[in-house]
Order: sequence, then structure tokens, then C-alpha cells
Amino acid sequence: MSDYRQMWADLGLDLEAHDRLLEALPPTYHDVYLTQPHRPRGMEYFDFVVNEIHGLRIQELQQHKQQGGKVIGTFCVFVPEEIIRAAGGICIGLCSGLETGSGEVDKVLPRQVCPLIRSFMGFKLGKICPYFESCDLVVGETTCDGKKKAFELLADYIPVHVMETPQMKRERDYQFWREEIKEFAAKIEEITGQKITAASLKQCISDTNAKRRALLRLAGLRRHRPAPISGKDSLLIEQIAMYDDVARFTQQVNRLCDELEERVKAGTGVAPAKAPRLIVSGTPMAIPNWKVPHIIESTGAVIVAEEMCTGLRYFEGLVPEDASSLEEAYAGLARRYLNINCAVFTPNTDRTQRIMELVQEYQADGVIHVSLSFCDPYSIEANRVEKACRQAGIPLLKLETDYGQEDTEQLKTRVEAFLEILK
Amino acid sequence: MSDYRQMWADLGLDLEAHDRLLEALPPTYHDVYLTQPHRPRGMEYFDFVVNEIHGLRIQELQQHKQQGGKVIGTFCVFVPEEIIRAAGGICIGLCSGLETGSGEVDKVLPRQVCPLIRSFMGFKLGKICPYFESCDLVVGETTCDGKKKAFELLADYIPVHVMETPQMKRERDYQFWREEIKEFAAKIEEITGQKITAASLKQCISDTNAKRRALLRLAGLRRHRPAPISGKDSLLIEQIAMYDDVARFTQQVNRLCDELEERVKAGTGVAPAKAPRLIVSGTPMAIPNWKVPHIIESTGAVIVAEEMCTGLRYFEGLVPEDASSLEEAYAGLARRYLNINCAVFTPNTDRTQRIMELVQEYQADGVIHVSLSFCDPYSIEANRVEKACRQAGIPLLKLETDYGQEDTEQLKTRVEAFLEILK
Repeated sequence: MSDYRQMWADLGLDLEAHDRLLEALPPTYHDVYLTQPHRPRGMEYFDFVVNEIHGLRIQELQQHKQQGGKVIGTFCVFVPEEIIRAAGGICIGLCSGLETGSGEVDKVLPRQVCPLIRSFMGFKLGKICPYFESCDLVVGETTCDGKKKAFELLADYIPVHVMETPQMKRERDYQFWREEIKEFAAKIEEITGQKITAASLKQCISDTNAKRRALLRLAGLRRHRPAPISGKDSLLIEQIAMYDDVARFTQQVNRLCDELEERVKAGTGVAPAKAPRLIVSGTPMAIPNWKVPHIIESTGAVIVAEEMCTGLRYFEGLVPEDASSLEEAYAGLARRYLNINCAVFTPNTDRTQRIMELVQEYQADGVIHVSLSFCDPYSIEANRVEKACRQAGIPLLKLETDYGQEDTEQLKTRVEAFLEILK
Repeated sequence: MSDYRQMWADLGLDLEAHDRLLEALPPTYHDVYLTQPHRPRGMEYFDFVVNEIHGLRIQELQQHKQQGGKVIGTFCVFVPEEIIRAAGGICIGLCSGLETGSGEVDKVLPRQVCPLIRSFMGFKLGKICPYFESCDLVVGETTCDGKKKAFELLADYIPVHVMETPQMKRERDYQFWREEIKEFAAKIEEITGQKITAASLKQCISDTNAKRRALLRLAGLRRHRPAPISGKDSLLIEQIAMYDDVARFTQQVNRLCDELEERVKAGTGVAPAKAPRLIVSGTPMAIPNWKVPHIIESTGAVIVAEEMCTGLRYFEGLVPEDASSLEEAYAGLARRYLNINCAVFTPNTDRTQRIMELVQEYQADGVIHVSLSFCDPYSIEANRVEKACRQAGIPLLKLETDYGQEDTEQLKTRVEAFLEILK
């Protein structure tokens, strides 16, 4: 990656700190990903993308910017990426998933805050995220208290636009959210200097739906027994979905699915047919936070679905493609995005119901609920998931963890004990 | 209080657990309150009310219920009490402020949740709060993640109506909030079986404003040097404001203020004129959470204002009394309540600005920011308060604590060190 040093320096990265970050990643990736047995060949592309996470993709963003394009960063699946691209922007999910720059973070944030929030603040304060440094605007939202308030602090360092996401899903909330989306579109137009047209938005809705369809196809293939792909690889693809080029990514996911279809036909998989099948549900897992999936699959179990923002919540639900006006397109976007089953809604019974359905659809033997530390929405909603699982007789394991490695052995013990119960 | 045992039994309280609770309170109250020097005589009424907190007031609620009246409980200064009373209900602030029933609470809530939330869940699960057991409805809100999600669990045990409070203060938010208030009014009418009329609402707005004016009068008197009343006593009155009978309370606060006016004229106070004057700002302090004020005033300093929900946020801002229709009255309520400077709003610059003003108005020497543990809105916003204080050259001490007594000595040391700086 040394060819990119000039680019990183031009972006104003702290090169020394950034070097330390990059040095830490490859061994992790090797151990977690490259040693997996029976990996599909199609994973090569995604390995390449991760390898170039601070290289080629950043170069692409810079080229886009040199041609007058804008880069918009987000932290949430509620931000309608269609709108950003319809105005000529590139939408990227920003860095987190790693404990970094704690010393600097402690100066601005309390310790008892969700590690995802501390992480993105650390990436920004430490100047080690080339995505952050490429952004013309960061789009925040009011989903959870921690992010909502942290965006106020982040705005000291980078332009931030905050979308007010509703807390319920009634008709009044939908109308509110539709107006919020229109205001967001106006803000994006202002940043990119490019008007969103009915045609450009239609095209971007269609492209994004194609990406979602590819991911849904991948998800569908995981319903088969034996599982044709590991949960870790699937998670990786879902993580990459948030920052890769849309058309290229869609093509590569579909190519991988062609291969997986062959596997399904041949009855081959990444684990034996009798391997325990699990659904992981909870808070998002940002690159390189593969800790829990790695622990789970190292036991011989296979994860068949992620009911998470880095997972089904990101790509379930398509936006209608037949809008006859911009207004109608915004309405369709508002409906689709408000349907996301995030724990910030109250009540959020659709999520627990969806988990019950997923267990059937994916022939799962149990559910592992994973919440980031200090995440009130998910850690409290775990009680509702527990209640629903108990009523349906579905085994559930509740975990709470952060980005550190200190609890690895403890988590491992608990996962192993849970798998014993499933037998 | 033994005369009330039958009433408590009829309410379904766990009498043994309730006895333990009551036994723990009187010594605390004696040490914190009754040993204060130079207390105004007018505090006798409030001492009496606290002493009868689970007695006479509960009896009044029961009498109201026997006559077909309803009791509505709330946890937040955003719930418009005028509406509850305009429909013939009694509005009471519910129990928290004390660590209780941890064993039961741990079964439903994570440990890393704000102590206020764990406390109200403990009061309900442990059946030791006669207010909870008197309630026909609990009104929740979506102010913070923890409460928002905990209300879903609470609804397993008692009817809950949740108001969706906005996250910003734009015109769209105001319109949304006005509709929410109207929906709330319809819900309250359904519960009480009594229609709200323009006349009944006008009367209740006027009564509530009278209560606010009495509290504002008390606050105004505290601007004088020497302070005519302690911060602890003022806080107690602000706490009692949330559950006492409105007319009686208003009268008693005004009577106390008459006495304090005499003190101001005579130049007498509860502490020497040169005593350090402090503003306490942050999360609410529910009865019997007097820990930090007790620590502060035990050092010889005097608290002159509470920028808290149990404080100025509760009574600053009057509702217009000249509404010519119900619709106009709801609009006035919506404006007044949306103006509350709670940290759940983003941005919430009005709060930091108000703190700066308070320091001038109350001749304060410094600010102590107190946040409950795990409260993201306040603990993160503390950074904004810190920034504003630094720019204005106002000394600030940031504390984070819970309802336990384990950190008392540590807090004392920090407060004493802070006061050294002020000298």
C-alpha cells in the first residue's frame, strides 16, 4: 500500500498512527478470514477490496473529487444513499469497529458510551481515517442518544447534517420523515451543486435495489443446508456494501451467487450439513469488528443470517421503482426507510416477529443476540427478543461486548455452552 | 404512618419491602434536612409533606379515585400536567431516586442503564411505590433511549401511553409535537371519561402558571446575597412540586416566599454573604436523591439555582392564558413545552446559553454539572457546557454519579478541591 502514502499525506492523515493501524489489520484478517476452509472463489474480490480499503477505494474517491464530485459519509442505514448518488455524490459508510485514539476521545466523550461512537470520534480526532478526511459532509441522525449528541461534537471538526429520524412508525411519523428526506435532498443538492431530477433519482433507486436484490439473493442461498458460505464471509460482504462502488459490488455479489448456486446444487458447503445453524441479531458490526462471528464459527457452528444493520436491515425492503414524480419517489423512499426494524423505534415488535420468521426461513437452531456495550436501545430490547424466543421455544444467547479483545475467552466459553444446549 | 397499613395492603404493596424502605428514609431526611442551620419556618409544610409522602398524599389519591377520579403518573417535565387536570385527573411524578429491587430489575434491564430507569422499574417490580399502584395510566415519552425502551417493558405491568417528543425544535417539530399533545389529550379523556373544555383547560393553565410563578418567585429570591434559603430546601420544594396538590402547594410556596422576602430585607440568610455560590446543572434529582447537594452545601457553599428538571426546567416559561379556543390552548402548550432546554434536543445551545445567563443573574461563582451514570444526553452535552464555561471564564466541575453512596467520599474530595479553586 506504500504507493498511497502521498495521497494519505495530502489528505492530512497522521501517517505514523495510520501505519500502526494498517499494520494491525492484516494479521487479524489473515487469521479470521484467509484460514477458513472451503471458501468460495468469489470471495477473492472482497478480500481484494478489504486489502485496498485505505488504498484503491480512497483513490477512486479522490478522482471523483478532482472531477468536482462530492463525498458524503454516513453512520446509519436510515440515510437514503439513493439521494446522495442522484445528486452526483458518492455515499460511504464511515470508519468505526475498532478502539482507537482513546486518549483523545476521553477528552471529549464519556467512557460509558457505545464503542461505535467512541470509535468514529477516535478515527476523526486521530486523523487516521481516509474516508473521514475525504468527506465533504457527514450525515448524522437522531436514531440513538449517543450518536445524536456526539454529532454535535463531531461538527466541531467536520460539516455535519443531522436527519431527525422518528421514534415511532405511525402515519404522522411517516409524513414527518418524508419531509425530513426532502430537506436532506435539498441539503445534498446544495453540497454537490447538482439538482436531483426524477430521472436521476429513479436510476439510483433502481441501482440500489439491484444491490439489495444481489444481497437478498446471497441471503436466500444461505437458507440451504449445508450453508454454501460462512457467516463471516457474508458479514464481510454486507460491510463492504456500505462503501464500495454500487455497480461493481452488485456484479461481484451476483457472480459469487452463481458460484454458490452451483454449491447448493452439488450439496457442498462450508460446514457439515449437521453443523448448528445460528442467527446473529443486534447492533451493527463495522469492519474490522468480526470478533463474535469469529468466535461462533470457530466452534463449528455456522451463522446463516445477520439480523443487523450490517445485514438484513440494510437490504431487506425495496424502494418502488415506478414513481412518476420526484415527490412520489421521496414518498417511496420514506416508506421503505421507515420500515427498518431498528431498536430505536418504540414499540419495535416487527423486529422480534422478523427474528421468529428468520429462524424458520433459515432453518436456524438458535439466536445469538449481540449488543454493543452501553447501547440502550438494543440491550433493553434484548428483553423483548428473549420474551418472544421463550414463547416460541427458540434457544437464545444474549451477549454484550465492545471492540476490545479482553472478553474473548469469556465469550467463547458462553458460546460453547450455548451450543451444548442446542445439541 | 402505621394508620396507612391497610391502605398499602389494599394497594397491593409488598408491606415488608415497603417497611424497609420507610425505615431507611427518616434518618436520611433528618441528617440531610433537619440539621440545617437557619432554616426558614415555612419549610415546616414541606417537611410535613415529605413525612406523609406515602401516607396522606396517597390517601388523597385514593379518595379521588373513590369518587371516580383517575391518577396519571409521569416521569418527565415534557408531559403537560394541565391536560391531565383539565380532564379531571391528578398528575403525579412517579417514584425513583433510590436504588431498589436490583435483583428483580436485573432480570429485565441491563446493569449499564441510568439509575433513574432502574429505580422506577425496581419500584414497580418490587411493589413498594404506592404512587405506581395508584396509577390508572403511566405517561412515558421518547426523550431518551433508556426510558423509551424501558416503557415497553413497564407496559407488561401497568398501562402506558408514550408521547413522542421531538429531537429538534424546528417549526416542523413544533407542529408534530402539537399533534402529539392533542392525541395525548384524547387519550387522557378516554381514561378519565371526562371531556376537556376550553374553560377547564384555561383554568388548569392558569393554576399551573400560578404554581410556576410561585416557584419563579422563590428562584428570584435566591438571587440575593446572602442566600435566604439553602439549595437543598429549594430542591426539596421543586421535587414536591411534582406530586403535591397544586393549589395548596402554590399557597405554601408563596407563604414561604413572604418569609424569605423579610429575610432579604433584613439581610439574613442560611450562609454567610461570602459563601461560594454555585449553580447545579444536569439530570433530575428525584426524592430522596439529595446526595450531591448535601455534599456541596456541607462544605459551606450554597446552591443558588438548579438548572435541572427538578428545578428551573420545570417552571421556567409560562403558557399563554388568553387562548380563545382549545386548539389555541394546545398550540400554546406545545410551544411552552417544546421550549424546555433538555439535553435530548440536538442542538441544545439554548441550554448552555441559559447556564451562562444564570451565572450572572444568580451571582454564581461556578457551575457543577451533575449527570446520572449512563445518561448519554447529559454526559455528552457536558462537553458543550464545558466549552461555553471555558469561553466565558466560568469555573466548572463535572460529576457523574448514581444513587449509591459508595462514591460519597470521592465526590466530597472533588467538590472541596473545586471550591479551593473558587477562592
